[in-house]
Amino acid sequence: MTEIEALPHPFDGAIELTAGDDGLVRGRTRAEYMNMVGPFGGITAATLLSAVQGRPDCLGEPLSLTVNFAGPIADGEFEITARAVRTNRSTQHWALELVQDGAVATTATAVFGYRRDTWADAETDMPSVPAPEDIAPGGFPDFVAWARNYDFRFLDGALPGENPGEHPDSTTTVWVRDKPSRPLDFTTLTAMADIFYPRVFLRRGQFLPAGTVTLTVYFLADAAELAANGDAHLLGRARAHRFSRGFFDQSAQLWSRTGGLLATTHQLVYFKG
Amino acid sequence: MTEIEALPHPFDGAIELTAGDDGLVRGRTRAEYMNMVGPFGGITAATLLSAVQGRPDCLGEPLSLTVNFAGPIADGEFEITARAVRTNRSTQHWALELVQDGAVATTATAVFGYRRDTWADAETDMPSVPAPEDIAPGGFPDFVAWARNYDFRFLDGALPGENPGEHPDSTTTVWVRDKPSRPLDFTTLTAMADIFYPRVFLRRGQFLPAGTVTLTVYFLADAAELAANGDAHLLGRARAHRFSRGFFDQSAQLWSRTGGLLATTHQLVYFKG
Repeated sequence: MTEIEALPHPFDGAIELTAGDDGLVRGRTRAEYMNMVGPFGGITAATLLSAVQGRPDCLGEPLSLTVNFAGPIADGEFEITARAVRTNRSTQHWALELVQDGAVATTATAVFGYRRDTWADAETDMPSVPAPEDIAPGGFPDFVAWARNYDFRFLDGALPGENPGEHPDSTTTVWVRDKPSRPLDFTTLTAMADIFYPRVFLRRGQFLPAGTVTLTVYFLADAAELAANGDAHLLGRARAHRFSRGFFDQSAQLWSRTGGLLATTHQLVYFKG
Repeated sequence: MTEIEALPHPFDGAIELTAGDDGLVRGRTRAEYMNMVGPFGGITAATLLSAVQGRPDCLGEPLSLTVNFAGPIADGEFEITARAVRTNRSTQHWALELVQDGAVATTATAVFGYRRDTWADAETDMPSVPAPEDIAPGGFPDFVAWARNYDFRFLDGALPGENPGEHPDSTTTVWVRDKPSRPLDFTTLTAMADIFYPRVFLRRGQFLPAGTVTLTVYFLADAAELAANGDAHLLGRARAHRFSRGFFDQSAQLWSRTGGLLATTHQLVYFKG
């Protein structure tokens, strides 16, 4: 079902940027996309990607994005600087900083470029799972504001509930889409790359202090393929590889409703406990 | 077997940097670590990591590194700028650029920090394979200069040979160590993260124009665990997820000889054909 929204979607409000007379681009945090401490990392990543897309000299489509969460982002305004470090014939490299009160809170690098027809194949098939319509929505506790903007249908690896206990592996498989629904594009796909809550919560069966240190997204589909998904759910699957001495990595895949692998994403996460 | 080298190891020569009176740090490409076009990406990544490690204000150990190969690196000298963008109590974020003749050839971001004891577990066991001593060395054609600096023992997914044909999957499993052998540290581990030749060669059964666009390494072990490996082989396993419209991603794991997961690494690669 496609809902046509007369008002801007909350997601678009949350990543909105305005260019000032001083040449700086400014945004601000939004209550509706807050995490337990500071904004949802996915919305920050999407905002940085959007800062490049909004540049008149931006070349082609997003190919990759790495976001480093260097320090806390306080409620309120921030500035983003986006610098085209190098522009080649078919690729363009960007360096970005998100600054608050003169301190760098987030850094990022992005690669944009033109795609062209080549041999193609996918090796990672979408897991065979029930349709999202056959799964009950839910899974995040209500105090996690940003999660209220997503329709989650967990197939396995939901967040720890009331009597969770430890879990033998860190795999989560989940259908997800924006709530209210919104056509997929590179910004919403970027945000969805960060919906996989810290895997240590699942393993330990409890919420612990944890946060993404650095996040990378590889965009494996073009704009037309994202548009073809419309506002249908994506299927995501995430897992960790190793937890050791305060850090762990986690990797995830995001497939379109019809099984196209749209993005792979990886992050390093710090944790306590 | 541990070989004690009286002379500096070629790897250390290749990542060597000198600080000039002008505050710039300079290195140069080395014939022995060249790839088909320009230097081996792994040696560039290791040199950038080393630039941070050489800074007196460097905090802790490497946690992650992302290197963006923005343009070609010509034979000869280059300058590296390394900027501590933000220093927190337990983590430090760096932004780096490798410049030749005023043009940025490579950008990078790195996160360093202190590790501390926490709950720990690994979910990705080392594949059960024969010991490196039981596998014949080889696998790279002799014209790939950098590969002569490694002892490779391929278990599966070796490079296309004389009558290769297409391969149904992109997985390579290989024992690797420096040749001559050298104790493992974060710089050599970084370089080994890039030894997994472009997966499209394996799938298509031929060498094609291809190169890494962006590379990320997550360091999942501390310096003591790397040191404990000594100069023993590491086991690496790599695979791609999707090839589409000129780009593909590939991910790999690197285990110590005794099965500790030392690093996970991911890259986006362009290709033609």
